[in-house]
Amino acid sequence: MIHVRNAWHVAAWSSDIAAEKPSAISILGEPVVIWRSASGTIQALEDRCVHRLAPLSLGRCEGESLRCMYHGLLFGPDGVVQEIPGQELIPARARVRSYPVADRHDWIWVWMGDPALADEALIPPAVGISEPEWILGHGQLDYAAEARLICDNLLDFSHLTYVHAQSFGAGPEFAEHQPKITPLERGVRVSRWIPAPANSPRNPHDVAVEAYQTYDFLVPGVLLMWSGNYPEGTAARLGDLAPEMADALSGLNFTSQAVTSTGPGTARYFFSWGPHCRDGDDAKRDMMMVMAGQAFAEDKTMIEAQQRVIAATPDPQIMPTAHDRAVTLYNRLVERLARDNPAELESAA
Amino acid sequence: MIHVRNAWHVAAWSSDIAAEKPSAISILGEPVVIWRSASGTIQALEDRCVHRLAPLSLGRCEGESLRCMYHGLLFGPDGVVQEIPGQELIPARARVRSYPVADRHDWIWVWMGDPALADEALIPPAVGISEPEWILGHGQLDYAAEARLICDNLLDFSHLTYVHAQSFGAGPEFAEHQPKITPLERGVRVSRWIPAPANSPRNPHDVAVEAYQTYDFLVPGVLLMWSGNYPEGTAARLGDLAPEMADALSGLNFTSQAVTSTGPGTARYFFSWGPHCRDGDDAKRDMMMVMAGQAFAEDKTMIEAQQRVIAATPDPQIMPTAHDRAVTLYNRLVERLARDNPAELESAA
Amino acid sequence: MIHVRNAWHVAAWSSDIAAEKPSAISILGEPVVIWRSASGTIQALEDRCVHRLAPLSLGRCEGESLRCMYHGLLFGPDGVVQEIPGQELIPARARVRSYPVADRHDWIWVWMGDPALADEALIPPAVGISEPEWILGHGQLDYAAEARLICDNLLDFSHLTYVHAQSFGAGPEFAEHQPKITPLERGVRVSRWIPAPANSPRNPHDVAVEAYQTYDFLVPGVLLMWSGNYPEGTAARLGDLAPEMADALSGLNFTSQAVTSTGPGTARYFFSWGPHCRDGDDAKRDMMMVMAGQAFAEDKTMIEAQQRVIAATPDPQIMPTAHDRAVTLYNRLVERLARDNPAELESAA
Repeated sequence: MIHVRNAWHVAAWSSDIAAEKPSAISILGEPVVIWRSASGTIQALEDRCVHRLAPLSLGRCEGESLRCMYHGLLFGPDGVVQEIPGQELIPARARVRSYPVADRHDWIWVWMGDPALADEALIPPAVGISEPEWILGHGQLDYAAEARLICDNLLDFSHLTYVHAQSFGAGPEFAEHQPKITPLERGVRVSRWIPAPANSPRNPHDVAVEAYQTYDFLVPGVLLMWSGNYPEGTAARLGDLAPEMADALSGLNFTSQAVTSTGPGTARYFFSWGPHCRDGDDAKRDMMMVMAGQAFAEDKTMIEAQQRVIAATPDPQIMPTAHDRAVTLYNRLVERLARDNPAELESAA
Repeated sequence: MIHVRNAWHVAAWSSDIAAEKPSAISILGEPVVIWRSASGTIQALEDRCVHRLAPLSLGRCEGESLRCMYHGLLFGPDGVVQEIPGQELIPARARVRSYPVADRHDWIWVWMGDPALADEALIPPAVGISEPEWILGHGQLDYAAEARLICDNLLDFSHLTYVHAQSFGAGPEFAEHQPKITPLERGVRVSRWIPAPANSPRNPHDVAVEAYQTYDFLVPGVLLMWSGNYPEGTAARLGDLAPEMADALSGLNFTSQAVTSTGPGTARYFFSWGPHCRDGDDAKRDMMMVMAGQAFAEDKTMIEAQQRVIAATPDPQIMPTAHDRAVTLYNRLVERLARDNPAELESAA
Repeated sequence: MIHVRNAWHVAAWSSDIAAEKPSAISILGEPVVIWRSASGTIQALEDRCVHRLAPLSLGRCEGESLRCMYHGLLFGPDGVVQEIPGQELIPARARVRSYPVADRHDWIWVWMGDPALADEALIPPAVGISEPEWILGHGQLDYAAEARLICDNLLDFSHLTYVHAQSFGAGPEFAEHQPKITPLERGVRVSRWIPAPANSPRNPHDVAVEAYQTYDFLVPGVLLMWSGNYPEGTAARLGDLAPEMADALSGLNFTSQAVTSTGPGTARYFFSWGPHCRDGDDAKRDMMMVMAGQAFAEDKTMIEAQQRVIAATPDPQIMPTAHDRAVTLYNRLVERLARDNPAELESAA
């Protein structure tokens, strides 16, 4: 698999990283330990002691440092060993990798590439679950499947018509019509107008409306989507232009989703979803989370089954269809970003 | 492993394939989906969508066709894609493999080799569980072992003396004496006479009788056996000739068994057994199924343990004994049939 | 992994090998069957029938011999086939490997190397659980980790300060101070004095004492350790000399431990521990076993986590510290003993 190392990978929900409790996650197959130091700073190191490879995530926080609890080596937040019990001299090689890490939008983000290139401006503008403007539920799922298969799924919503006919009540329009696809510097934008008849599940009005749905899918696998209802005729009036979020009649909602490759054949999927505070309440959010729970289980069933078929196929070949435009565009971007950074290929999980 | 592709492989009990419910099975490591179409026709396709390799067995039956429920491609019973949602043109390569399939003797049979050679006359003459002449129970077992090890077991009944001393109450005669072995065009026939003292478990008469037991073991792993009791002296009188089934005094019974290689190191074992309607009733069949359940569990314990030893042995070598004549004869036939069809070796699971 | 084949490997607790009940264990990845014959003699053979590789451990004891219960081959205690049902001639190759085996100190020991070199004088002088002088509890644990990682753990007690701060109540002295290390012909001796303040957990006296702790760690992974309390000043008085066990004031206890490599990435760990009969009773032994149970679970958690990190690391490198002197010395001895016997490297599990 090819991955974009020079990107911010979601490692955890910020609220799941308690003070001075080291937490282990594998990202791109690399073991990473994340913790909040005594001062509250978030830290990320290679989760593998330089001495005998014990995981530092079984260690003990001491001030800004982390002590391996096998034989007591003490690591600074820069990964450099500060103390080796019973030994005066600390060799220069006594260090583990330190990862740039950020606590933003209620997610912990880890930069897996060259630390010199880590730029917090590249963190995707997700909507955090604590932002008061939105009423968001959240969750996560572990996949026995390549991260890429989940990204492919999220980049082609024609699957909604088939996989999510029950849960999301998606009709034939996702399979019948192509969305508008716009390349972005670090991703792809996918937008569409969907007619919504009067008094239908997502249209509370007694006149037909048009639902606008748009998402950016950004490296290394972050989906940021909002939807809203607009008066009939808006699509025709705007042509290629996007409507303003603030002009939505109703049904305004936002979902942030992140696919993190944890290793070969495994991934963790983080998601939040819910209404804008002016268009819903806790009950609506709860109803949406029930729907999402069902839909994401449908995806998981299909994608893990797909993964098992791929794993059992000697030389797996795909045959892209017209609906794969965004998938193809995004995967080419991933390949280009990986090629620009030769380290990508070596460390591909 | 070498397998005979140009043969009918048992995929399922016919009664287990419900109308318009696709069912997945792996045969020789290849994923196969089986279903009954709206017209009741049994169909078998490669269980792997040509688009992104999702399993068609998660799909939906539509008339004679099967729709992939990931992105909606529709497959005809010949494996050719009939519809790609959102796309006019259907590429010539948009097809999956279609397998000749037959519903016969209450089993679903799939021809894994060259479709041009699929000849229903080659379907082994098993006795179906719905045939009114026989009162048959049935079952199946999944093995964590190569199909070949189960075939070897079934081709050498000297194991009855040791493995099934309790369940079948087999005495020393299976280990002490060689059966008569006859090569068949697509298998091996194994026959023997076993003396049965008066009033013994399988002899209800108050005089000694002789039990005749004969089975054909046919590619790719089908055992068809019947037994019956005859008056003392019949064996000597007939010499090399086989007795007529109809002349049996008592104890007439039939078992059909099939070993299907599902992949490297795994197999599925199908079996039925029971008395002839003139020699038993439901109670006798149930008693025989209890006995078979115990005996087949004894085989499974031994064969899976044997498989684990083989898997842990760098260069496993066997040392055939005199009782391996039928095993050797059958395995040479398999090799010859495989050699005649070069595709066998490539696709060996 | 490199192992010393020419050594006695602990296969089982003697009391766990019942009369005429074959028992299976894998040692260095080789399947071994152990049993007590009708005469009570302990026997060990390759657990793999020469015919079709069924495990002999599913077999039946007959006098001094063991019968394979698949097709009935009978093996003598020397591994030579004595009987092949249905066959007169027994080929010369009809034999499995026979291992020198000994029942000593309540353990069953198997010599995995050249039988001609098997010398019972090389059996490590463990203290058996039935020896009346000591009151010993015992147990065993299966590890999902290389035996070597457990040996490394036992050769560097600096981990006590970190891993066992709770269970053994180990203080900083194990990490701060180096023990005395003495090379032995087939192992390493590790000894130290530990100050014990008055009325502390391991010092029942109302004056400070000095605890002496010494263990021999012997190939292929046997730890034999005793400890005892001595009057303050004994260490200074004796200098480099070891105290007599008999002179201990109190707290005299003994532990025998054995690490057996069962295969690549797995091991079995046997242990006993308890007080000398003049320094404790059943209650004290039980208290010590509770403590050991907690401590050995702490080791298992750490070592299995370490193993998982190593397995996920492409080219795992360690960085030894000052506390690794005994580890390094022992592992060099293992390499030397393996090099002296070229068969070691080939059969390395």
